[in-house]
Parts: sequence; structure tokens; C-alpha cells
Amino acid sequence: MGLRYTARLMAQTTNVGILNVTGYVGAELARLLYTHPHVKVVGITGRSAAGKRLPEIFPHLFALDLPVLEALPEGCDLVFSALPHAAAAQHLVPFIEAGVPIVDISADFRLKDVAAYEAAYKTTHPAPHLLPQAVFGMPELHKSDVRDTRLCAVPGCHASGVILALAPLFAAGLIAPAVVADTKTGLSGAGRALGLNVHFSEADENVAPYALDGHRHLPEMTQELGYAASGDYASPAPAITFVPHFTPMTRGILSTCYADLLPGKSLDRASLADLFREFYKDAPFVHVSDIPPSTKAVTGTNFCVIHPSINLQTGKVVVTSALDNLGKGAAGAMVQCMNLMRGYDEDAGLRTLGLFP
Amino acid sequence: MGLRYTARLMAQTTNVGILNVTGYVGAELARLLYTHPHVKVVGITGRSAAGKRLPEIFPHLFALDLPVLEALPEGCDLVFSALPHAAAAQHLVPFIEAGVPIVDISADFRLKDVAAYEAAYKTTHPAPHLLPQAVFGMPELHKSDVRDTRLCAVPGCHASGVILALAPLFAAGLIAPAVVADTKTGLSGAGRALGLNVHFSEADENVAPYALDGHRHLPEMTQELGYAASGDYASPAPAITFVPHFTPMTRGILSTCYADLLPGKSLDRASLADLFREFYKDAPFVHVSDIPPSTKAVTGTNFCVIHPSINLQTGKVVVTSALDNLGKGAAGAMVQCMNLMRGYDEDAGLRTLGLFP
Amino acid sequence: MGLRYTARLMAQTTNVGILNVTGYVGAELARLLYTHPHVKVVGITGRSAAGKRLPEIFPHLFALDLPVLEALPEGCDLVFSALPHAAAAQHLVPFIEAGVPIVDISADFRLKDVAAYEAAYKTTHPAPHLLPQAVFGMPELHKSDVRDTRLCAVPGCHASGVILALAPLFAAGLIAPAVVADTKTGLSGAGRALGLNVHFSEADENVAPYALDGHRHLPEMTQELGYAASGDYASPAPAITFVPHFTPMTRGILSTCYADLLPGKSLDRASLADLFREFYKDAPFVHVSDIPPSTKAVTGTNFCVIHPSINLQTGKVVVTSALDNLGKGAAGAMVQCMNLMRGYDEDAGLRTLGLFP
Amino acid sequence: MGLRYTARLMAQTTNVGILNVTGYVGAELARLLYTHPHVKVVGITGRSAAGKRLPEIFPHLFALDLPVLEALPEGCDLVFSALPHAAAAQHLVPFIEAGVPIVDISADFRLKDVAAYEAAYKTTHPAPHLLPQAVFGMPELHKSDVRDTRLCAVPGCHASGVILALAPLFAAGLIAPAVVADTKTGLSGAGRALGLNVHFSEADENVAPYALDGHRHLPEMTQELGYAASGDYASPAPAITFVPHFTPMTRGILSTCYADLLPGKSLDRASLADLFREFYKDAPFVHVSDIPPSTKAVTGTNFCVIHPSINLQTGKVVVTSALDNLGKGAAGAMVQCMNLMRGYDEDAGLRTLGLFP
Repeated sequence: MGLRYTARLMAQTTNVGILNVTGYVGAELARLLYTHPHVKVVGITGRSAAGKRLPEIFPHLFALDLPVLEALPEGCDLVFSALPHAAAAQHLVPFIEAGVPIVDISADFRLKDVAAYEAAYKTTHPAPHLLPQAVFGMPELHKSDVRDTRLCAVPGCHASGVILALAPLFAAGLIAPAVVADTKTGLSGAGRALGLNVHFSEADENVAPYALDGHRHLPEMTQELGYAASGDYASPAPAITFVPHFTPMTRGILSTCYADLLPGKSLDRASLADLFREFYKDAPFVHVSDIPPSTKAVTGTNFCVIHPSINLQTGKVVVTSALDNLGKGAAGAMVQCMNLMRGYDEDAGLRTLGLFP
Repeated sequence: MGLRYTARLMAQTTNVGILNVTGYVGAELARLLYTHPHVKVVGITGRSAAGKRLPEIFPHLFALDLPVLEALPEGCDLVFSALPHAAAAQHLVPFIEAGVPIVDISADFRLKDVAAYEAAYKTTHPAPHLLPQAVFGMPELHKSDVRDTRLCAVPGCHASGVILALAPLFAAGLIAPAVVADTKTGLSGAGRALGLNVHFSEADENVAPYALDGHRHLPEMTQELGYAASGDYASPAPAITFVPHFTPMTRGILSTCYADLLPGKSLDRASLADLFREFYKDAPFVHVSDIPPSTKAVTGTNFCVIHPSINLQTGKVVVTSALDNLGKGAAGAMVQCMNLMRGYDEDAGLRTLGLFP
Repeated sequence: MGLRYTARLMAQTTNVGILNVTGYVGAELARLLYTHPHVKVVGITGRSAAGKRLPEIFPHLFALDLPVLEALPEGCDLVFSALPHAAAAQHLVPFIEAGVPIVDISADFRLKDVAAYEAAYKTTHPAPHLLPQAVFGMPELHKSDVRDTRLCAVPGCHASGVILALAPLFAAGLIAPAVVADTKTGLSGAGRALGLNVHFSEADENVAPYALDGHRHLPEMTQELGYAASGDYASPAPAITFVPHFTPMTRGILSTCYADLLPGKSLDRASLADLFREFYKDAPFVHVSDIPPSTKAVTGTNFCVIHPSINLQTGKVVVTSALDNLGKGAAGAMVQCMNLMRGYDEDAGLRTLGLFP
Repeated sequence: MGLRYTARLMAQTTNVGILNVTGYVGAELARLLYTHPHVKVVGITGRSAAGKRLPEIFPHLFALDLPVLEALPEGCDLVFSALPHAAAAQHLVPFIEAGVPIVDISADFRLKDVAAYEAAYKTTHPAPHLLPQAVFGMPELHKSDVRDTRLCAVPGCHASGVILALAPLFAAGLIAPAVVADTKTGLSGAGRALGLNVHFSEADENVAPYALDGHRHLPEMTQELGYAASGDYASPAPAITFVPHFTPMTRGILSTCYADLLPGKSLDRASLADLFREFYKDAPFVHVSDIPPSTKAVTGTNFCVIHPSINLQTGKVVVTSALDNLGKGAAGAMVQCMNLMRGYDEDAGLRTLGLFP
């Protein structure tokens, strides 16, 4: 199975920097890039950890003994940012203005509508003038734009699972705009910050809903599913009732999406699956499955497994999807976008299958 | 806090038998009854385990060193059955005909409509003539009937969480009949039978939907929410899209229910909470909460915590509930029903608070 | 099974206060006392939470809607302290001097040797003059002293598991003084304080040793096993190599203790079990088991299950014990001691069996 | 970081077969080999699953859509066997006699002493005449033999953790022959077979010792640590008291080993670490760590992290090690051995870092 590597080695190595390696997304990026065939990590930063070595922060990265810096060195070919919102835009402006390609996991460049951003994140956008050049980093919907961009805004983890589950239906004009998205997430989605919500003794053996007043990933879902429905960002967007839930596992998001067929539309399960397979025929990381997905089957990978179905009792369309929130939901998708931006195989460094059991 | 026990001790002791103590519901019943102030367990049965002692089957019950019998002794004042469907009815007919009060956790006597039962359970009902005397064992909807019955059919665990979450809304005539019920269950709900679905290495760190072709608890939900809406069992029932999910914990069900207000109805969150509190004012085991529920807060208890809410973005009514599937979802509810049938305090033997953390 | 309650109701109610209800031991105490037949909780305190209601701190205690106070009200018949070391002694001195019976879970009054305390806890003992009146709160070794004391120092959770596992062997003069104690603990033992060591994403699916430089519970083990060996606190104590490990569960400690028979001693497994059963014949919460113990079988209880064995290959004595670190390892043992101090049945309020599964 | 791949691509591809792909070791092998740069899987077998496709057995391998065969095709360059003991030898004899290189994870060819094998596995050895040509597949002790062999017997998971932890001490002649090895394992070590011991509801939140009458991995430990001590397989072996414990996680073994320095020997922690680093200086998958190991840091990898220490209270040497039982404890080690046998870089296909968090 090694023959495909030949072509890849022709490719030029990319020297990358990682901003804020000290969170889970940064650490996962470092881990993935360690075995990426075309990447060299030339610098990593971390706010409070500058001066330490990476293994002091993350012992599992003992083989990646890099110093954590205050700032990236000159000459990065591409910058990955795992900074939180607002901080990301602030730190990235100089790079963007210098023309350095950026792959950013914050929300700062995801939303086309500054007002929606400022309402969701309760802050003034640090660089709204840069939004027009940003591309929403979901290759399954925007592959050619991702290839051509220098500012790639990778979606949030809940948004990835829900958008991928519903986009084919909106694109086909099959469903009514009011949908329900009920997600079940592992706790690494909450990051490395301390809190009772991620205290083992309280999160273990516990399932609970949260963000019942509205979750920040909602505007992305609305924006992109509106785009899927209409082909542009100006048309009216769907009405998504989105409720996330914590579940007692580290990685994974299972999204269960409920939609109503529009009057006059009808569909059986087989043609529904065909529709999804056709929609994702050029998406190497989406697997349309005949059996229900499970988060464990995609742990540690960049895959999203999707199972479209129709409820036999009510006719409701029920689409379930599974992904690893730190893989396809964050660091994996960032590497996938970089691969496209740099002209590598889309799956370079990302061919790992699920760590099961 | 011991004073309330005085009144209880006036009550006469009930000699009970447990049919099929060898599953998780049977074991939990034995555990609860061990500390019940008015109950004496005079016999326990178990299909394959007859001849053994209970602690050989369940080491945690080492202090309850009873023999597992082939059949219950004569003279039980009340019989708890933890037999599976079909087997339950077969074994219970002689007791019912002899007038012995029964509390049954199987589905055999829950459904008023024999056809619905036979379709869901793919079997011929063993004793349809007894259905008219059965009462649905949910005191929150049928307390006086439970008090008066000799055949109490305690609901399934998913059904309990969903019915309790939605009954006040249907009873108030506020919501449209098409609702979504998305439940997240611990794995003890699958029982003690072996299977890859409950194999630790495969269920751990895993969330997945199941029963996408229809779950057996659905007809109960439909029946009882139809009853809540109309006050009788003959009116048209709601259309419930019900999708259960496995989550990596042992006990607990978190139900998330989505409903649309009927045209012309409007409601704020505070009046919604008032509606629920009024509906459950005589229900000692329902706690209407101002904060979202979590399964861990009710572990080991007979409580159901319910949090009604309204989605701020879409106006959808979102009700979340949490219960212990072996507590209020099974053995706890069985003891609660027995308390009513025997004239004890409704919470006798059931005052334990959640085992948290 | 309710008949034993009659005698208990003759007993007078004890009005108790809980100092520092806001940690896990305090919360578990409140939970246990809620159903204790002879106890009324008349006041609870919590450092930073004063002014709040208990359910705001611990939602699972929604039925225990007490105010968290700055200080206990006058007139408590007994005070439970769940304060940490040093703070405990400081707050308890006035109560002790006023003659109020105390049950304390801190280390402050456990050690007879002030120097050992000050070395382990790196602090000056706030009240060394009170140590002579303190009793080590392990009724299995000191039942009559516990009955008679007004200052009961309940042992640490690791210490309880190890001492109970080894005391019969030392008491019988069978084993050499150098022993190994390898414990595996659930994470609630680390308390409610935040830290990466109890961050779900890092503690989940993780087993690791800790405290390799020495754990604070070691001096208690040494002291009490020396007492078991000699009958006094002055004789030379055993040399215990103690290594605790975190395991990904909330409650429970499994202790595996390794000892060598003294030269000339020999013993088979059956006589070993007899020795343990005889030693614990008056200990209602120790169950000497013929099968290996498991933490889940004692979850939520005050039991310690002990399985003494002999390694067939090497002749080493291997004793394993299981207890709930918040039950017999903390709050349960506190209630047990109170029962003895107040003349109640030793198991009053503590008859619950393990929450299994 | 891709430059090292160049050299590897010069290497010839190895066509491999996997016997018994349907267990966890077989599945992990398939997963690892999917991304191995020099390997092509040309056939997989599975006893009861013949005729199915691999993803029907393991959905996480959806991208590896191979048929499960009755028997391997002709022409494999190397055969991996994940068959259980006895079955392995029976199936492998024809391959061995035909000169096909074998990497076997069963116990059949690990032990030099047939009698020890037959006592531990309670069966007659199917092919004792082949034992002399077998090599114990632990490159850290036998690298040149592994390079030269055609019959490589990879050790059991507990044995790997314990041998790696203690070999440097025995090799240096520092410790007494009586040692204690206390291991804590994830449940995937018990395999995919069903049983109450791996039933989620019973294994979750549970730690328990097992195999107190003797575990089958013990003879390997004894043999190899005797070899480490003396340099041959004929000298007297150490006396190991080995007690394994189940812990509620899927992957990982944490081994805690206790040894006594021989009279007259002394050692501080720093020189102990130096000793280990020197011993493992050519072992790319052993990381001697200054901090205690944790299983999660090596999940999904072929690494063993070892932390040698000295107990400050008793002077006992305490060595803790962590590995992934399906990685370095099974499939990872098998690939490592194949790499050596085929002349590839020892870490080809195995450079993945720990899946943390």
C-alpha cells in the first residue's frame, strides 16, 4: 500500500508554524503533522508555556521535543492557528497582510455576516475587512475555493457534523427549512480549560444538554446550509433548532438531524442513500454508510460517517453522522485544507483508520 | 429526619415475591426492597439460576443470601415480575386469576391495543382478555387507578422519560401532534444478556443511534401522550419520531423532546415552568428544574428531573428530562406503584438522593 | 425487613452540623444523613458558598434545600467536619473545648506522632494538645474507644483499604514487617478542586501511578498496622511501600497488598479466610469474601470486601480489598462512628447495598 | 518530516497474509498495515466470518474492503497469525515447513520449556519440534535474533510491560529474584469474546483483580527475566508474584513492579534512570521517562514508557511502565518484528504518537 507515497514525495516540503499549540487542537495538529509526509513544523507558540518544551506540556508528544516560542520564526510557508476567537484575528492580521497562507480553527473568519459574529461571540470583530477573502474550510462544499485561498476558516466541530448531514438534502431542495439538530459530543470539545463541567467525577457517567440559550456554532450551520440550499450566501437561511449534549467520552460527535420532506416530495431510503453518495462522490473523508454511524469507528481519523434514513412511523428524514471532534471536527480538517492549499493529495498524512476498539 | 418513619411502621408488612431476579431489574428490585421499611421478600425465582444463592449471581447482594427458586412460595401478598414480555403474561395469569396483586415491568399489559402489541413484539399476546383490568403504572398520570388496581404494568424506561417530558404540553393542548424524541441511554437498559453492543471495548467511548427502524417503547409513548392530550385511549395519538442512542455509561436516560406550539399559542419560559409545576404538583418523584437536568444527579434514585424550555432562535419547545433507567425507569417505579397499591407513603423505601459524584 | 427500625425509633434524634459541605465528602454526608433515621441536619457551612442554597452547589441534593451558612448554629449535638487538614483543627478547637462530639475526616487528629503529621502535611499542627483525646475512627480496630470518644478522627480512604486488608495478618504475627500496598483509586478521591489530573479528557481511559515520592496516607497505615501488630502505638511499625494509582472511575478503591509469611509460618487459603472471618466477626461492614472483590459491588455503600489469598507460585500472601472511597473511605465511616458515639445501631442509615450495575 | 520516507521506498513491498483477522489483534494489524509504507495485505482469514467482507465484521475498517477467506492465498511473503494458542501452531506448521516467515501472537512458540507451556495452557503442544527455531519477539532483548528468524513469537501484553520494566535491573545484577508485578489492564486485553467480565454495565466503574490462581503470561516473564539475569535460558529464573487487574478502559496496561536491591547494592534515582537509558539506547520504542507513565499517553502507539524509581520510605525499587496492549502489547510489536525480519526501518508504519486526549 505504499506506492501512492511515491507521487507525494515529489511534492515540496511545507514549513509550517502552529500558533497556540497548548490546547487540544494544537496538540492534535502537532501529532498529525509529525507523521505528515510533506510537512516540517518549524515553530510552535503557546501563550503561557513559552520557554518550555512541548513534552512538558503534553507528555504524549515526548518524541516531538520542540521549544514553545513566544512567536513564530520568520519564513513559515503556512501558519496553522489554534488560537481562540478574537485572539486569532488579532495575531493573524500581520501574516495575512504579508500573504502567508493561513488555516485557522477559530470562528473569526467563518461567518460572512459580521453582525452574526459579534452577536454570537459578544465582541467586536478585530478585522472585518479581511472577511471577504476568507473561505469556509469545508472542502466537501467549497473544494475549489479552499484550493485557491490564503485564508481558510475551518468550521466548528458541531457545525461540521450537522452541515455534512444536512447539506445534500438542502442542496436537493427536498426538505423544509425548519430542522432539528441534536448533537452528542465528547468532552474534549470543551478544550483543556478547567471547569466543573469537565471535572471527571462530575462528567463521568453523565449525559446532559447544554447551551440551551444558543450555541456559537449555530450561525455557521445556518450560513452554510443556506448556502447549500441556494448556492449563495445572500438567500434566507434555514431555522435550525440546535441542542448539544455532553456525553462521557473524550472524542467524538454524533449528530442526529431531523427534517421534513417538502410537500410533494417523496423518497425511499435507497434513493436517499444514492443522493448522499452522489453529493459526496469527490469527498474522500465522507463515508455514506448503510448502517448507523458510531463515534468510536472514527476515533483518531479525519472521516465523517453519515447514515441517511427515513423514520418508518412518521416519514421524517433522520440523518445521523459521526466524526472525531479533534479530527474532522478540527485538526484533521485543518490538515485536509492545507493539503488542498498546497497541492498535495487531499488525504496526505490523514489515511489513518479509526482507533477501534 | 427519621420522624416520618413512625407512621410507616404502623403499616402492615407486605410479603412479596420477585419473578426473574437474575436480570438487572430483578437485582435492583431486590436491592431496593432490602431497605424498604414495610416489605419482606419471601421468594425469588430465576430461570437458569434456580438452586443457586442470590450472591452467586450478584456478588453485590452478598448481604441478601436468599435461595433462587424454581417458583414462588404460596402466600405472596404481591408479586413483582421482571420477566421479559410474553413470558411475563404466561407466568402471571395464575396469579392474576387468583387475585394476587401484580407489578409487572414487561410490556405485556402496558398497551391497550393488542394489535399494536403484537406488531411491536412480533408475538401473539398470551392473555389479551386480561388487558382491560391492567393499569399503566405511571402514578404521575394515573395515580388513583394505580392505587386501585391489581395488575399494574410499569412503563419502559425510554417511555417514562419521554411521556413525563411531554404530557403536560399535550394535556394543555399547546403543541402540535408531530414531535421528536431523542433519547440517550446508559447501557444497563440493554439488560444483562451478552452482545457486542454491550461489550465494554466496543461500547466504551462510543455514542451511536439504534433502533432506527422503530423501537418497542414507541407504542407506549403514543398511547399515553394521546391519553394525556384527550383524556381517553380512543382519540388519535401524536406522531412521535423517536430515536434512541447508546451512550457510554451504565445508568441513566436523558430525553430531549422537540415540539411546536400550535398556531396561535404562545408561551414564555417562566409560564412554561409554571405549567409543568402545576401538572406535577402531586408527583413526589418529578422535579421540575430551572437548570438543565443531568443523568448523574438522579443515579440510584426514583426521581425524574424535567427542564422545559423554549429555543430562543426558533421558538421550538424543547423539554429535557433525566431519570435512572433502573430506578424511575424500572425497579424504582415498580416500588412506587406497590407503595400506592398497598397504601404506604408513595416514597416509602425510595427516599435516596442521587449517587453523585 | 422493616422490623429492626422499631428499636431505632426509640432513639433520640441527634441534631448535627456539617462543616464544609461543599466538597464531595460533605455532600455525601448530607446525602447519607438525609435518610438517616435518627439524625436531623440543623446547619451546614461552606467557605465560599455561604449565602447560597445547597442545591445551587449540588443539584443532586435538590430535595435538601438548606442554606449554606458562615458558621454552625448553636446547639449541635455533634459536629461532622469535612474541612481539609489544618483548617479542621483550627475550626474544631472551640467545639472540642466546649465538649461537642466531633467526627472529623481530616488528618489533623489521626496521627499520634505530631512530627509525622508535620512532616507529611508540611505545616505546624494547630492543636497538638488535643491529640491524646483523639481516637482513630476505625471501629473494626477501636470500637470501644470510638464509642467513648468525643473526638473521632476518621481515616483516609487509601489507609482504610490497606489497614483493613493487613491488620488481621499483623495481629496474628504471621507476616514480615516489609509489605507492599498497591492501590487503585477512583478520581473522586482527589476531591472537587479543579486540575488537569481530574480533567475528564485526560483522566478518562487513563491509568497512572502518582505520589511516588510518598503519599500522606502512609503514616496512618504505618501507625495502625504497627498498633495491630503490637497492641500499642509505641512499638516499631512496619515498612510499607505504598503506591497509589488513578483509574478512570469516580468511586472506589481496590487495594492489593503483598506480604511475606514469617519464617516458620505456614498457612493455606482456607485457614487464612478463617483468620480474617474471626478477626472481623463483630465488624458489620467488613465482608470476607471467597471471591475477589470489585469496587463496583460496594459503590454507594459502607462495606469493605476483603479477599485474602496466597499466591500459588511464590507463597506470597496477597490480600485484596474494595471499598467506596466516599462511603467506607469517608462519609460512610463518619456516620458509622457517629452511630457508635450516639449509641445507635452501628449500621443505622447505612444498610444500602452496592449500586450495581 | 517526510524525508525519511525516501529510503523506505527503496525497499521492496512485502505481501502479507493475516490469519484470524476477526479478533482485536487481527483488526489492529489490518489497521496498522493499511498505512504501512512497504506492506500489501493480500489475504485475511477468519474462522466463522469467511465469506463476509472485513467491514461487515469491523465497521471502522470500511476503507479496507477485503474478503474474509477460508485460507490464505499462495505466495505470501510473510504470515501474521492472530490465532489463539494451539490453533496457531496447528495452522502454522505448513507455513513454517515451507519456509514462510511467521510473526505469531499466540503463546505457542514463546516458551522454551514445553512442560511449562503445557502446564499453563492445559494442552499438548502441537509442534514441540519447532520450538528451537522460534525467537521471542521482543526486539529490545533479542534484536539480532528477531532479524534472523523465520518464526517470531511475539510476547503477551502483560509480559511485555513487566519484562521491559524489570529486564535492565536483572541484567545489571542489582535486584533479588523475588519481585512483585501488579498490572492494570484495559479490557480489550480480554479479546472480543463475550462474557460478563467484559459486559459494559459490569466492567464500567469497576476495578478488580483476576487470575489470582496464576496467569498464563507468568511463564514468559519468568523465562525472559531469567534470560535477562543470566544471558541464557537454562539458569534459575526469578520468583514473580504477578497479579493482574481489570480497569475500566479499553486499551492500555500500566505495570507496577516492586523489587529489592541485593544486599550491598545501592543506587539513587538518577543513576537508575541512566541504567535504563543505557540498556534501551537502541530501542526506538522504549522511552525512559522522568515522570510517571500513563496509559493514555501511549494509546494507539507502539511505545512503552518506563519510569524507574526508588521508594523514599523503604528503598524498594519501583518501576512503572505503560503500553497499549494492542500496540506494543500485540499488533504493534508484530509489525516491529516484521520490520526487522524484512530489513525495513524498525519504526516503519509505527511512527504514530499517542492519541491524547
